Amino acid sequence: MKVKHGGNIYEAAKKYGLKEGEILDYSANINPFGIPNVLKATIISNIDVIENYPDPDYRDLIWSIAKYNNIDKDYVLPGNGATEIIFQIIQALEPKRTLLLAPTFLEYERALKRVGSDIKYHFLDESNYFKVDKKDFLKELTHDIDFIILCNPNNPTGQIVEREVLVEILIECRTKGINLMIDEAFIEFLDDEGANSLIDYLDDFPNLFIIRALTKFFAIPGLRLGYGLMSNGEIKEIILSRKEPWTINCFASMSAEVLLKDNEYIRKSKEFFKIERAYMYEKLRGFKALSVYRPQANYIFFRMIDKTINLKEELINRKILIRECDNYVNLDKSYFRVAIKDRESNEKLIGVLSEVFS
Amino acid sequence: MKVKHGGNIYEAAKKYGLKEGEILDYSANINPFGIPNVLKATIISNIDVIENYPDPDYRDLIWSIAKYNNIDKDYVLPGNGATEIIFQIIQALEPKRTLLLAPTFLEYERALKRVGSDIKYHFLDESNYFKVDKKDFLKELTHDIDFIILCNPNNPTGQIVEREVLVEILIECRTKGINLMIDEAFIEFLDDEGANSLIDYLDDFPNLFIIRALTKFFAIPGLRLGYGLMSNGEIKEIILSRKEPWTINCFASMSAEVLLKDNEYIRKSKEFFKIERAYMYEKLRGFKALSVYRPQANYIFFRMIDKTINLKEELINRKILIRECDNYVNLDKSYFRVAIKDRESNEKLIGVLSEVFS
Repeated sequence: MKVKHGGNIYEAAKKYGLKEGEILDYSANINPFGIPNVLKATIISNIDVIENYPDPDYRDLIWSIAKYNNIDKDYVLPGNGATEIIFQIIQALEPKRTLLLAPTFLEYERALKRVGSDIKYHFLDESNYFKVDKKDFLKELTHDIDFIILCNPNNPTGQIVEREVLVEILIECRTKGINLMIDEAFIEFLDDEGANSLIDYLDDFPNLFIIRALTKFFAIPGLRLGYGLMSNGEIKEIILSRKEPWTINCFASMSAEVLLKDNEYIRKSKEFFKIERAYMYEKLRGFKALSVYRPQANYIFFRMIDKTINLKEELINRKILIRECDNYVNLDKSYFRVAIKDRESNEKLIGVLSEVFS
Repeated sequence: MKVKHGGNIYEAAKKYGLKEGEILDYSANINPFGIPNVLKATIISNIDVIENYPDPDYRDLIWSIAKYNNIDKDYVLPGNGATEIIFQIIQALEPKRTLLLAPTFLEYERALKRVGSDIKYHFLDESNYFKVDKKDFLKELTHDIDFIILCNPNNPTGQIVEREVLVEILIECRTKGINLMIDEAFIEFLDDEGANSLIDYLDDFPNLFIIRALTKFFAIPGLRLGYGLMSNGEIKEIILSRKEPWTINCFASMSAEVLLKDNEYIRKSKEFFKIERAYMYEKLRGFKALSVYRPQANYIFFRMIDKTINLKEELINRKILIRECDNYVNLDKSYFRVAIKDRESNEKLIGVLSEVFS
């Protein structure tokens, strides 16, 4: 089984006979400010750090993450990208039957299949803008479900689950002995991250597992760094006992301390996305050929109403790669996701779309 | 379960109240020539590469490894250090009962326990210098064994299994339907690597799985890069279908091309170890308190005859960290492993040992 990934510019380059460098990549959702300068400087002046094994206990890294999130360091499990933690938590919990949003991030399903979990899909309704409806969702928490994954904001739809709904689901899960994983990999892009994260609930909910990534917000998908947060010491111990050692490279391990303290980068990114998201949303909504879902993070999800146009082909012919969403459950070839990039690139995308739709 | 690792200078520093930088680390077996300059230059001039996701198929990386080993690229499975590949192969094979050398590298046992494999130890005999005896070993290939791991040269003993013995074991394994993993992570340090590797046997033996690492020879344990070689396409497919994506970071992925072509670094390292291994061996043998096993790779294994001295403590008090081997099966507190480092450091170690033994 091969999974088609959003960020696979390499495959696109090969398929369409292009060089990777000449493709404008709207398929991967990476902060257009790029790698923070402080990280480049840190890597260059500490390049010899890779001559040593990483600390197998990643003490300094854990400390930086705990401090940034203002939580107990025992709650922190760092990983080789968020993906490692997603796989490890699922491996440790060994769920029998999992409730998954449809559509949602594809790797959950692969990780679940690896442990033989049954999957029940909660089909999100287009007429409700692919949002989670509290009443409908709570009905799904039947006695056979022992695990739920919610991606918040959801990928690829960009929709958030309201805090009040999330908390009610969390409480219901605890009552029913269901473990709940919330993937907050894109939460730093929201206007109000604090009001949407469930971090404050970790203390009281040993059934809550939160996933975070530095990959997207700090534009380091090639360096690989993410983490899990949980108060459940028993599950954390199972994961640590089975985990491969040294999975996080020394550059990634060292990066958290400088990135999570780079308040200027964080501030300017948040400001930028607030403005650029509104700009892109307005521009895309202007096209009658598209039905655009209101974005919350750093990417925009839409549907092609006019099915006579092969949008992906039209754009790649103009060297722009977008994410076709036909390999998500509950979506088809008419759905697409585009990143929010810098203004110049965004104008180019809008210009090209005008051309295609004219 | 926590495993004590060789390279854990971080724990030693904490325990003994030292700074990591002031410890002379003889516990990790890393090439003292350090990171090749060409790699440092490549990382610095390509630092933006981490702004993209790695190629999930790692096409260029696989091509470099195949070329270096002069084999079919379909045989290559790159990993986040050799460790990832060891764990993945074991996860895919799911052996019921595994024959392991005692002593040998500790991570095999952790990986085997994760899939619930029984372990049968082949106890290596001190009176035979911890070498594998063909007759004794072949007797162990009983009908219940379905998997064997041989570390060649073995860690921590530094002994090699003779090629002729290896081939006989390999043939016998094929006949009996046993999968054989040969861990060649340290093979590049041997005087005659080609005469000891089983790479040439891959074509004819789908039961053969070879592990290689760039970590040790190219002094990049903090960057993480290793690979597996196998002609068994079915098992490789199982691994790929279950593997977490993007486990190898972009710097590591990019490094193979420049490292494996750095013939000058390879040549001078091999020359150095030939001389320095002989030097260290002679010097260590000069101590009556020690029984030293002839080294083949870049580390030396020995036993303290005089049990009144706590060698590890004596050395760490002088800021030298060595690897105490008491957590290996079939070894106890009297066994140690030291790396072969640069001449200046080696003279310091020898000098300190003279002091301790005087």
